[in-house]
Amino acid sequence: MGGKSQITVIRLGHRPGRDERMTTHVGLTARALGADEVIIANASQSCETVRDITDRFGGPFEVTETAEPLSIIEGWDGTIVHLTMYGLAIQDVEAEIRDHYQEGESLLVVVGAEKVPFDVYEAADYNVGVTNQPHSEVASLAVFLDRLFEGEELGQEWEDADRVVVPKETGKRVEKR
Amino acid sequence: MGGKSQITVIRLGHRPGRDERMTTHVGLTARALGADEVIIANASQSCETVRDITDRFGGPFEVTETAEPLSIIEGWDGTIVHLTMYGLAIQDVEAEIRDHYQEGESLLVVVGAEKVPFDVYEAADYNVGVTNQPHSEVASLAVFLDRLFEGEELGQEWEDADRVVVPKETGKRVEKR
Repeated sequence: MGGKSQITVIRLGHRPGRDERMTTHVGLTARALGADEVIIANASQSCETVRDITDRFGGPFEVTETAEPLSIIEGWDGTIVHLTMYGLAIQDVEAEIRDHYQEGESLLVVVGAEKVPFDVYEAADYNVGVTNQPHSEVASLAVFLDRLFEGEELGQEWEDADRVVVPKETGKRVEKR
Repeated sequence: MGGKSQITVIRLGHRPGRDERMTTHVGLTARALGADEVIIANASQSCETVRDITDRFGGPFEVTETAEPLSIIEGWDGTIVHLTMYGLAIQDVEAEIRDHYQEGESLLVVVGAEKVPFDVYEAADYNVGVTNQPHSEVASLAVFLDRLFEGEELGQEWEDADRVVVPKETGKRVEKR
């Protein structure tokens, strides 16, 4: 978001053919709600969709594909947050995480898929639960980012957009730029 | 959430075979983040999954399947919020919507799928955008509920749970009840 430091979201691999659409939504949510980059494990179609949206609706936002998500996590220089229903309550740890961000540390937000390896829990500086209930990694990411940025991401300006949606009480209005 | 009034989330029909998993995540997010009920159009498998999670992790939470989502919307007695990237900014309208809720009006939150009929935009008291960017209906629902309840939903107690996840710094802890 051009903020104090870099926020990267990394989406671990999903079972082939099963969760590609969910992975796309993780990428689009990362972009829309203020992250600077998404790294996606083994999902070319999702990467393409998120890049296409960035081309049309603006950036800056980076999309990177990787075959080695665990190496990225293990080599990360900064703070690692792993979103998991088994983690500590977001409302208890968000202020501390925000401090790291505001002090200029690069933040890596790990979004799992099925069966997250135990190494990820250990590599994380914070295992964070948006409730301890089973729901959705997309929902958890959204609430996490909205709280991290305290809503500032909602007023974000986009650069190089081809089109801009103008808020409307009823109906749809899209302007070409 | 046993709050001041009833919050129902309704998920419009998705194209068969395409977004069933997304629909399940809408239902699970509604439950985890404080809604009282989800109504799902034509997706028996999603209904079953959300009911199964409610049986195991607790309630109260209602799951209803419908073949006629538009009739429910058009006959709704209360406030209707439609989440759409074309709508008014959530940060501008959330306080007003919260007032309706706190005054005891039943709230229907409409979550679209592909191609939402124009009737829905017209039936809604509020068309609300969680940003005007394309991302995810699951993300929008999550941010909407977290803001509506101002985070109170995160501390919700669950009744009749078979199992409870205990927040943990590293790893997983689930207790059977």
